[in-house]
Amino acid sequence: MLSGMKDTLEKQIGFLRELDRLKSVVRRSILSHESRRENSAEHSWHVTMVAMTLVEHSDEPVDLNRVIRMLLVHDIVEIDAGDTYIYDMAGNEGKQARELAAADRLFGMLPDQQRVEFRALWDEFESKATPESRFANACDRLIPLLHNYWAKGHSWEENGVQSADVIRINRAIGDASGALWEYAHALIEESLEKGYLRP
Amino acid sequence: MLSGMKDTLEKQIGFLRELDRLKSVVRRSILSHESRRENSAEHSWHVTMVAMTLVEHSDEPVDLNRVIRMLLVHDIVEIDAGDTYIYDMAGNEGKQARELAAADRLFGMLPDQQRVEFRALWDEFESKATPESRFANACDRLIPLLHNYWAKGHSWEENGVQSADVIRINRAIGDASGALWEYAHALIEESLEKGYLRP
Repeated sequence: MLSGMKDTLEKQIGFLRELDRLKSVVRRSILSHESRRENSAEHSWHVTMVAMTLVEHSDEPVDLNRVIRMLLVHDIVEIDAGDTYIYDMAGNEGKQARELAAADRLFGMLPDQQRVEFRALWDEFESKATPESRFANACDRLIPLLHNYWAKGHSWEENGVQSADVIRINRAIGDASGALWEYAHALIEESLEKGYLRP
Repeated sequence: MLSGMKDTLEKQIGFLRELDRLKSVVRRSILSHESRRENSAEHSWHVTMVAMTLVEHSDEPVDLNRVIRMLLVHDIVEIDAGDTYIYDMAGNEGKQARELAAADRLFGMLPDQQRVEFRALWDEFESKATPESRFANACDRLIPLLHNYWAKGHSWEENGVQSADVIRINRAIGDASGALWEYAHALIEESLEKGYLRP
């Protein structure tokens, strides 16, 4: 193997080893078939499957391949920055600075061209400025809402979340898909009726 | 929402809920930064990142988007069929029948067109007949080998795996990438020298 190629490969393998740490970042959601919390690596797979399965409901045409790649990398920064619960106002204050530093370090482990490519995917996801990033973000909102519904409001209850918060945070699903927001909104209404969520 | 669209969406959400079960399918590999076994959902994310990161080392040109989609769905059948350890000869005997039945049931939860599309990805992965499926399979072999090396041979030791088995099983990496097989083979040699693997 040429030494340039070996150097490239060593950097890439080092990055892939670091990714193993995302499996230890624990989220608030609990699984629907066993009572343990979800980690950010398995979430990354699940939310990517959400996009692949629900893409026909996007209001704008999207390049699904770009949505998929964005979702695969969207939580890598949590290896350093941790998972910030979306309803945690205080935690969300310092979130951006923590995640920017994390993106610099983690994508910085890659060879130059790939660092730029992966970072661009993460920046686009964060920007919500393209149809692809809006749809990716909608999927990332929808899946915790589904988990909460399946778990009869477990993490809403645990964290004192109220229906107005849930509507405020999840309304952005409608920026990407009217159908998915209609579905999500009906789940929120049903959660209220069933007592999974406080008014 | 039109009732046809609602029906489609209900099927898709039912499938996505079923996917949550892949997070409870436990593999033999242990994580490199904590001593618990990996599950097949987090593995699915990690192996997809392997493909996205190492694609330049494929000997044949591949459509990375297809590789990614194949790897995202490749282990879904384990929800019903369980994870079969690649070095377990007896377990591998009934594997194909178990996995075919699982594919029928699980992809069968989807609306017609999507059932065909997702099933085709899984069939292609299993076939190893295209450059994309050979590269996807090479990534799926490489990552457990890396995990074993990082964990100083943990699951090789635990399951009495010998170096001839490791070479026989992983040689297929070379069908997709000479560079990755060269790298993998050097890791196997090093594992022998360090006592992570028995001759």
